[in-house]
Amino acid sequence: MRKISDRPIGVFDSGVGGLTVMKEIMRQLPEEKVLYAGDTARVPYGIRSAETVVRYSLEMVDFLVRKGIKLLVVACNTASASALTAIKERFDIPVIGVIEPGARKALETTRSKKIGIIGTEGTIKSNSYVHAINALYGNKPIVMKEHGAIHFDRYFEVSLGGLSIFTKACPLFVPLAEEGWASSDVAVLTAGHYLEGLKKEPIDTLVLGCTHYPLLKGVISRIMGENITLIDSARETVIEVKKALLQYGIEGNSLSGPLWTYYVTDSPERFIKVGERFLSRKIEQIENINVGG
Amino acid sequence: MRKISDRPIGVFDSGVGGLTVMKEIMRQLPEEKVLYAGDTARVPYGIRSAETVVRYSLEMVDFLVRKGIKLLVVACNTASASALTAIKERFDIPVIGVIEPGARKALETTRSKKIGIIGTEGTIKSNSYVHAINALYGNKPIVMKEHGAIHFDRYFEVSLGGLSIFTKACPLFVPLAEEGWASSDVAVLTAGHYLEGLKKEPIDTLVLGCTHYPLLKGVISRIMGENITLIDSARETVIEVKKALLQYGIEGNSLSGPLWTYYVTDSPERFIKVGERFLSRKIEQIENINVGG
Repeated sequence: MRKISDRPIGVFDSGVGGLTVMKEIMRQLPEEKVLYAGDTARVPYGIRSAETVVRYSLEMVDFLVRKGIKLLVVACNTASASALTAIKERFDIPVIGVIEPGARKALETTRSKKIGIIGTEGTIKSNSYVHAINALYGNKPIVMKEHGAIHFDRYFEVSLGGLSIFTKACPLFVPLAEEGWASSDVAVLTAGHYLEGLKKEPIDTLVLGCTHYPLLKGVISRIMGENITLIDSARETVIEVKKALLQYGIEGNSLSGPLWTYYVTDSPERFIKVGERFLSRKIEQIENINVGG
Repeated sequence: MRKISDRPIGVFDSGVGGLTVMKEIMRQLPEEKVLYAGDTARVPYGIRSAETVVRYSLEMVDFLVRKGIKLLVVACNTASASALTAIKERFDIPVIGVIEPGARKALETTRSKKIGIIGTEGTIKSNSYVHAINALYGNKPIVMKEHGAIHFDRYFEVSLGGLSIFTKACPLFVPLAEEGWASSDVAVLTAGHYLEGLKKEPIDTLVLGCTHYPLLKGVISRIMGENITLIDSARETVIEVKKALLQYGIEGNSLSGPLWTYYVTDSPERFIKVGERFLSRKIEQIENINVGG
């Protein structure tokens, strides 16, 4: 007999970016209750030190665990890179980050063995996707090379034996997405600059290594051309969540009541405004919470 | 006899933006010791609630006061708008914000009695420049009107009797400045969109109501045309600081030792990288501090 759990899934992010993961849960798992916790008072995590990110993350997850979640999605690249181990050690529920699913899919997808990764400055500097891909690829010795000057065109090439990874930080993509300019001519011009170097490389797969980037998919795909497969980490993460729910026998089948609740650490106004654009849906159940100091 | 105080000036900001004020102090007051405190662990203040901004500000200023500052500059528009009164009530030193000096200069400058104000979403929504100008203009009844749609071209018109103020939020200017793209074609295109509405209005004076914006002066001036006078709040603020030092008889004349020290609440790496671009100068004395929680 199929087991059922009416307990909610917890989704934790530093701000609104994780809503692309939330949107995928709504699409792929429409019968699951979800509690979303966004640390809007302390966003962005990407510019904080690793110790700070671990401390903030544990505080946020603690809040969700007390609310009775059955599974946690860390829908934030920075927290997935810096705090996943600490979260898994502290809490006794299945925990899924956003980095490994995208890394796995990229490795499955590439034919040319040349993968591109784009993300925030913090994600790219941490090389978290490189390490995740390398872990799946057999932990080869890493050789790094820098291309381009300091602005616009600077990117990195990482060689892992037969596999090459090209990484590029695109810091303006997040404010562009949050401003609602993800399809604007400014986004096209910005993407053109950021992706200039990667376009010249023989990659066939590009990982959108930031939860905000699915909003810019159209522009990125237009710049990169249709021969490049874009890997949407949000989508891959939720495929993994679906598998885990089955594996642990904790699928939900909520058919009534409020399915989705949001908790934010600062006033909800801006979260609602930007978030509804991310979700293409109204945000109704939202509460202001206090965590940490 | 001229009095002298070797105690430092304190400059408080949420992050790197206040460095444009710091740069002006270095230029206008080269003999003053300055302690700069940037709350980089909790930046940006612009998206936080007023209560949160007051709490953070008092914690940061308390740190500077304990270091023995003789005068405080609140080099952050959000903190100047929300926390100036609370800071003045709590601490017994002269306190100067960045809003009133720019507001006064705009009122002195305009001939057409039509002033433009640009700033972050938080600054524009708070109407802090409008209120500051109105206080100097005799507290006229305020009539507001909205122009344009929700994106790109949306701005506000505020009538105060014979004076009109046009306000426009330009959220992408801050990340553009921090990314080092302040003079790029992306900045030109972005400024073109943001300033489209204000260009059609008969303003002769435009207040750069955000400490980051002096970096974009060239681009903004190119879009607005040379007949518009740009008011640089950082410059006006330091003119006010100079007057206050004279008035209180607490000018400095430090001719040796480290003049400028920086304190940040998160790891200094990014602050140094972005900050040196803002200052056009090396950042040497920098320390990581803990405040609040």
